[in-house]
Amino acid sequence: MPQPDFLQPTDLFPPRHIGPSDDDIRDMLAVAGMPSLDYLCDVTVPQNIQLRRPLDLPPQQGEQAVLGELKRIAAQNLVYRSLIGMGYYHCITPGVIQRNILENPGWYTQYTPYQAEIAQGRLEALVNFQTMVGDLTGLPLANASLLDEGTAAAEAMAMCLAIARSRGEERKEFFVSQDCHPQTLAVLQTRAEPLGITIRSGPNTSIKFSEKTLCGLLLQYPTSDGYVGDVSGLVTQAHEAGTLVVVATDLLALTLLRSPGEFGADIAVGSSQRFGVPMGFGGPHAAFLTTKEEFKRQIPGRIVGVSKDAAGNTAYRLSLQTREQHIRREKATSNICTAQVLLAVMAAMYAVYHGPDGLRRIAQRVHGLTLMLAEGLRRLGFDVGPELFFDTLRVRAPKNQVDLIRVRANERRINLRTHEDGSLGLSLDEASTVHEIGTLLELFAGQNRLPFQIMDLADSIKPGYPNPLARTSTYLTHAIFNRYHSEHEMLRYLHRLQGKDLSLTHSMIPLGSCTMKLNATAEMLPVTWPEFAHLHPFAPSEQTQGYQELFRQLESWLAEITGFAAISLQPNAGSQGEYAGLMAIRAYHHGHGALHRDVCLIPVSAHGTNPASAAMVGMTVVAVACDKQGNVDLTDLEAKAVQYRDQLSALMLTYPSTHGVFEADVRRICQIIHTHGGLVYMDGANMNAQVGLCRPGDIGADVCHLNLHKTFCIPHGGGGPGIGPIGVARHLAPYLPGHPVTGLGTRESIGPVSAAPYGSAGILPISWVYIALMGRDGLKKATEVAILNANYMAKRLEKHYSILYTGATGHVAHEFILDLRPFKETSGVEAMDVAKRLMDYGFHAPTVSFPVAGTLMIEPTESEAKAELDRFCDAMIAIRAEIQDIADGRQPRTNNVLKNAPHTAAAVTATDWNRPYTREQAAFPTPSVRANKFWPAVSRIDEAYGDRHLICTCPPMDSYQP
Amino acid sequence: MPQPDFLQPTDLFPPRHIGPSDDDIRDMLAVAGMPSLDYLCDVTVPQNIQLRRPLDLPPQQGEQAVLGELKRIAAQNLVYRSLIGMGYYHCITPGVIQRNILENPGWYTQYTPYQAEIAQGRLEALVNFQTMVGDLTGLPLANASLLDEGTAAAEAMAMCLAIARSRGEERKEFFVSQDCHPQTLAVLQTRAEPLGITIRSGPNTSIKFSEKTLCGLLLQYPTSDGYVGDVSGLVTQAHEAGTLVVVATDLLALTLLRSPGEFGADIAVGSSQRFGVPMGFGGPHAAFLTTKEEFKRQIPGRIVGVSKDAAGNTAYRLSLQTREQHIRREKATSNICTAQVLLAVMAAMYAVYHGPDGLRRIAQRVHGLTLMLAEGLRRLGFDVGPELFFDTLRVRAPKNQVDLIRVRANERRINLRTHEDGSLGLSLDEASTVHEIGTLLELFAGQNRLPFQIMDLADSIKPGYPNPLARTSTYLTHAIFNRYHSEHEMLRYLHRLQGKDLSLTHSMIPLGSCTMKLNATAEMLPVTWPEFAHLHPFAPSEQTQGYQELFRQLESWLAEITGFAAISLQPNAGSQGEYAGLMAIRAYHHGHGALHRDVCLIPVSAHGTNPASAAMVGMTVVAVACDKQGNVDLTDLEAKAVQYRDQLSALMLTYPSTHGVFEADVRRICQIIHTHGGLVYMDGANMNAQVGLCRPGDIGADVCHLNLHKTFCIPHGGGGPGIGPIGVARHLAPYLPGHPVTGLGTRESIGPVSAAPYGSAGILPISWVYIALMGRDGLKKATEVAILNANYMAKRLEKHYSILYTGATGHVAHEFILDLRPFKETSGVEAMDVAKRLMDYGFHAPTVSFPVAGTLMIEPTESEAKAELDRFCDAMIAIRAEIQDIADGRQPRTNNVLKNAPHTAAAVTATDWNRPYTREQAAFPTPSVRANKFWPAVSRIDEAYGDRHLICTCPPMDSYQP
Repeated sequence: MPQPDFLQPTDLFPPRHIGPSDDDIRDMLAVAGMPSLDYLCDVTVPQNIQLRRPLDLPPQQGEQAVLGELKRIAAQNLVYRSLIGMGYYHCITPGVIQRNILENPGWYTQYTPYQAEIAQGRLEALVNFQTMVGDLTGLPLANASLLDEGTAAAEAMAMCLAIARSRGEERKEFFVSQDCHPQTLAVLQTRAEPLGITIRSGPNTSIKFSEKTLCGLLLQYPTSDGYVGDVSGLVTQAHEAGTLVVVATDLLALTLLRSPGEFGADIAVGSSQRFGVPMGFGGPHAAFLTTKEEFKRQIPGRIVGVSKDAAGNTAYRLSLQTREQHIRREKATSNICTAQVLLAVMAAMYAVYHGPDGLRRIAQRVHGLTLMLAEGLRRLGFDVGPELFFDTLRVRAPKNQVDLIRVRANERRINLRTHEDGSLGLSLDEASTVHEIGTLLELFAGQNRLPFQIMDLADSIKPGYPNPLARTSTYLTHAIFNRYHSEHEMLRYLHRLQGKDLSLTHSMIPLGSCTMKLNATAEMLPVTWPEFAHLHPFAPSEQTQGYQELFRQLESWLAEITGFAAISLQPNAGSQGEYAGLMAIRAYHHGHGALHRDVCLIPVSAHGTNPASAAMVGMTVVAVACDKQGNVDLTDLEAKAVQYRDQLSALMLTYPSTHGVFEADVRRICQIIHTHGGLVYMDGANMNAQVGLCRPGDIGADVCHLNLHKTFCIPHGGGGPGIGPIGVARHLAPYLPGHPVTGLGTRESIGPVSAAPYGSAGILPISWVYIALMGRDGLKKATEVAILNANYMAKRLEKHYSILYTGATGHVAHEFILDLRPFKETSGVEAMDVAKRLMDYGFHAPTVSFPVAGTLMIEPTESEAKAELDRFCDAMIAIRAEIQDIADGRQPRTNNVLKNAPHTAAAVTATDWNRPYTREQAAFPTPSVRANKFWPAVSRIDEAYGDRHLICTCPPMDSYQP
Repeated sequence: MPQPDFLQPTDLFPPRHIGPSDDDIRDMLAVAGMPSLDYLCDVTVPQNIQLRRPLDLPPQQGEQAVLGELKRIAAQNLVYRSLIGMGYYHCITPGVIQRNILENPGWYTQYTPYQAEIAQGRLEALVNFQTMVGDLTGLPLANASLLDEGTAAAEAMAMCLAIARSRGEERKEFFVSQDCHPQTLAVLQTRAEPLGITIRSGPNTSIKFSEKTLCGLLLQYPTSDGYVGDVSGLVTQAHEAGTLVVVATDLLALTLLRSPGEFGADIAVGSSQRFGVPMGFGGPHAAFLTTKEEFKRQIPGRIVGVSKDAAGNTAYRLSLQTREQHIRREKATSNICTAQVLLAVMAAMYAVYHGPDGLRRIAQRVHGLTLMLAEGLRRLGFDVGPELFFDTLRVRAPKNQVDLIRVRANERRINLRTHEDGSLGLSLDEASTVHEIGTLLELFAGQNRLPFQIMDLADSIKPGYPNPLARTSTYLTHAIFNRYHSEHEMLRYLHRLQGKDLSLTHSMIPLGSCTMKLNATAEMLPVTWPEFAHLHPFAPSEQTQGYQELFRQLESWLAEITGFAAISLQPNAGSQGEYAGLMAIRAYHHGHGALHRDVCLIPVSAHGTNPASAAMVGMTVVAVACDKQGNVDLTDLEAKAVQYRDQLSALMLTYPSTHGVFEADVRRICQIIHTHGGLVYMDGANMNAQVGLCRPGDIGADVCHLNLHKTFCIPHGGGGPGIGPIGVARHLAPYLPGHPVTGLGTRESIGPVSAAPYGSAGILPISWVYIALMGRDGLKKATEVAILNANYMAKRLEKHYSILYTGATGHVAHEFILDLRPFKETSGVEAMDVAKRLMDYGFHAPTVSFPVAGTLMIEPTESEAKAELDRFCDAMIAIRAEIQDIADGRQPRTNNVLKNAPHTAAAVTATDWNRPYTREQAAFPTPSVRANKFWPAVSRIDEAYGDRHLICTCPPMDSYQP
């Protein structure tokens, strides 16, 4: 029986998520010349792939009901005190950082800082991050973060291989010390195998330098079980043998310990998690990688550098073009094209807030408490070894005693690490207290009365390290780390930076292929619930039942949405999803004896990450042509499939295409590949156009990754975190990634692709909430409106710009391309000029020059209201008139509002103004800009200057704005 | 045994709260010519009042430890489902409002919007509030919120009295319908008694209009027990008898019910709590008061009105000068000088987000569920009466059955209301569901199987009201309530408004007497914990043990800090504290037979609220002169004390004085008063200069109120909430406010001064956390640094401005006054010009023309770092040079940077610029402004225009910026 209308929950979410009202939708359909949403989608999505049934998902529920259900699930996660260590530590997120960054849409809804003039805030924060990790590791060149410690180590390994090659040596072995975290070793093994690298592992004494086959070696410092030793001799040996040294390390320990750079390491990697970022059952956290100046051409990921703007002021930007669109395709040694910006910003701000003295005090306290614990354990008769350590002990005891200790720990809700040999590991952290030391000693003593006073232990210990282990060099001496230590100063610094960055709190960010939709508050609230935020990734499974239930549901929902049999949530970025998916395809072929299948077909229109990912799994990339409409050239595809029929491994295909079109022949494309023994990898970047209308699995894809940070509402965070789960057809299910520490996976599983079993588990509740709130009908409607919004905008703009590709029926999918190339000749205006000019109108540019140079690709998403779409269209139409002014000679070709864009407040208020347009035209070109002005912090940035003069650490104070 | 250094917690709070570092303090002491903080305070605070011992408070603890302890306390609050009603309802705070207003320092750290040019955001929000309550109540003139429904009713009663007087009638009776909430009646009784008003209460049929003694009557609509009836006949009768009609009403019900304005009410009052504001165990919430145009000179509180700026643009401002500094002193009928801005903004935004249709749907659902419940109860054989109702039922049953129902309700964690006659009350709300109706019916049925299907009930009911009760008029038709219904649009609207308002997230707000210190995140986090946010004020005490413990601790800490015997937390604003304190003094005198003691001495320098409060409690105000140094004139004081020795009730004294000076003779002043039979009321506005150094109780005060929103870190919220607990000496303790509903208080207690027993209980955790974090030494150091900061600034500025008052030793207390009067003659510059010019420098003005016209009073607080103090001093020094340019004739007297301030972006980017200074001088006068520019949203506002053309509702859309 249907409920009467008045009983409808009043907090239903689809009308909050979907921008246009039903009245708006009616009006917009009229503009697009369509009778209904259904009709629009029916003529847009090819007939032979339409789903034609509702998704088998729960119906929508109100916000309170969904959050209530999630609370129930969360309550099944038991928040024990985890002293497991292994690279994950409880820590204290300063309130001012939690509330003003992590919980602040002004920060978390920012896009990747490609449009640097309106991203100076987070770019400064990332330079702080780079300076911080560079200082602490003693290696001057840092990137702006990587996905996790395990993949950072893998990137370092790839660097070692590449550097050896650049020296003319083919060294295909890499040594991993047995002292490393086990998950790091496993991630390296997964990564090494398809590249033909052999991983050697064992005690450091087992390294055979003399064979000169090692491109590099990886040490953990302090070791995974806590030991701190002098490895400088080993480094010297390695260097003499032409082997590079990578050191996985801990930033907090480095405040007291000699840095890797000082003892000669070539590369340092690690996680900045314990600098104020919750464990989140494994992520997201910002990993780091630092290296020597000489390796600046080999460092993967993004690097923020210092450059100058048109007015000569210091300005930050992404350096060295290490970006998706510029990734080196099949020549790449890495497909890394993202970072963990939000988390890197948090970690950097943690260091800014505490400063060098504060960090040192935290380290000294953790270390002092660990010394007290060790002393207490010795007095109780336990063997903690004679060694030096920082925060981690390894305690050896007879098995029956260990078992009792573990039972007692469990009673006190404390998690310890159990090493393979049965010894126990304990890692203290920022939250440890004297009281906790007492509790731990009681666990070991087996009684509540200790035979000594806890505080006596403090008198017996000698904090500090002997030479050469003690840190003698300074760090974080830059003023940035020494002036914002009161909460007011910190608060204002954060807000000052935030004010320089355009985010979704200001206006739409219509980036083609990036799906910058609403990140609703209801989705974000659970992220900082303790039940999700404070779980260690290796906590026993009986404590993580809430997460397990959430994963099962989310996997089943994503499987239904994609039409696949199984999902892996592990890949913690879209690029990781591609890598994992191709690895599964490779494993499938190998599992079926087809070791020779290593050709990957990729259309020329594909995202640069695709070929890079293919290269990472050892595939040979063969390009497939596209026709004039931007569709895959079927003839060429078939020819290539035939030509490589014995080697064909996979086709990588984006759908709808990167040109924003539902290719009508997609089923046929998949059939061709299958016919010739290959599998189809679908790039899920454009999944937002499919949900509820068609499914990758039905279309013929064997694998597809999903960018949860696009279609499923995880915020972009200013350039990360991303998440890239993969869905696979039944025959590929056994090959999904496993994990050695928790036993996840099957015998056929590829190894882990991320350090944590469920990647960035801590933000998966966001997507769960989104799907639960929208329900089957809401999700479908979102897709329909996303398509409507794009078609409405295309309709409004087609009179002013030419739309580059449309589908067979004249409609675009959820995004479309404006061709700006003609303006180059008529007016000298290029796509980048329009992008910069949009900043003056208060908008972030659409995607520039991808997939076609000289174009803008616009993706509005369903979350934008008609009013906002109209404001954006009005801006684009106004800019078109500005271009015409130049073409018609009313404005000069080189000194005009477009070439001089963006215009800062300083520029338009300068006493001297000798431009051929007014100040108002520069800064307030339309009335609506007056109501909502965003001032770019700097003028147009000189890209070349920044690359020629690479500076990736905080510049001197006198170069700060002004 | 002292802990070794390394064991110190690393999250200690005093260095985060106190701006200057120890190095800074050293440097600043040198500038101030002082050897140490101790010395500075020793020469500043009079010897004979110094405390000379540490406060008996716990030592400081780290943030984690304090929040952990508070979690333990919070866990003793049991969050039952409360269906008690009586003006307090659970509701759903939309996430976008919770996170972007309630939890956002950009909103909650704003000051009261006196400097309207940098407060346009919250002023627009308050106009939305006024429009909303005006529309819904059907009465056109609204104020910008009041403290709670009870005090709003009391203000309405005072209005009725004043209006009668203005008609030449002395009507000293006021009728309160027995259908009103009992706490409202009690608050009215407290308020009425000293004013000589007699409260009549009973059934509406008992009103004796013929006697023409009633100035007004108060009805509740719907009634407290849920009934909805047509009272228009009663209104007609009242008007015929010259009696005004006040209607206490419910905004949600009014979306379906004919409005009070439509049936002729003169005044409507109520609470907007259920529009998205958590119950918080009683507050804070925004009450409202609306009335007819003709009573615009009688309406109390703040009114935001629409005016124009210097450029002719629409601009908002506080109208009619109903402000502290302008309060009508002893002629006042109200001492109300604050509002509940943050909560009013939330409620208004709730209406903006839902819109008229959304609000109506919420009301229809609540009403429909209530009808289903009534139908079900009838089918179970219960008497719910034949009446019409909205969301509340009164169920009559035999006592033994009622007792069983109550036991079962308790088992299911549900709170019902019990009426005095034993009948049960149930109020449904936004969070009610069909499932809940089932649960409630099971309670009454006494079994889990009901003899009918719940959904059958939906078919048997007929939602809606008969004429003339049904609402037929429209409401919230303005575009503001009809365009921001998607979360993105709402998010951006909120951020757009926020961007117009200068808050502590941007720069210091050095308001003398207002103590705008840090509102730390750790203090704010608990406010939205469910254990504090979701308790009903009349929940049984066994469910509120956490609050009780917190109150006990907070009271004991405040008692120790003030040197008093007892504290009442009930007054929910400083003005309420004054009122409550004077009421206690009055009750003391009456209790000792001294009914004639009704003279209140008040120094001429006092805050305008002081005489207004004295008038409210029926005292006669006698002014006491001040000497040239701004100190109380002892000779005059003694003369007045002698003159009025038989009538002397109290002296009201601010300490340190409103002139920012520790008067040396304060003990003597108190002795004089005591000698002549009076008691001393100390205004605690300047308590921030005393904590840990001296105590009101020791000095000789008998009562003191504490502005927790000043000294104890509750944020100003843009103009409320404030909290004003009072401390009293032992002899006054029995007279502290009581409460009839919960039985709080003694036999001697004055009645309640607030609707809820503990006033704004929901934000008391803020002050608890502050004191716990700072500990005895941190609190004292905060006071010392507050005094140092003021003296450092005075030292830096004394070369450029004359400092009006200093203490005997040449030092100021925690604030000081700059005398700008001489500039009027030399350059035509007035204090207001400097205040507006400071906006161009990115600063909020200090207090203007209080306590001395033509001056600025600066209070930096301890939370501002030396760097921020220096930036502010630099701005003031630069402005001094600008004034000199005028004085020296380099700039004209009427067209200069000061007279034209503030300068908007529109002004300085205009093509036409014919001012005698550059655009840069206008907008970027110093380099540091470039690094942190705040753009005023409008130019100087025309105050007179706005009062001449009073518009207090949303203006037409075309008048919105631009």
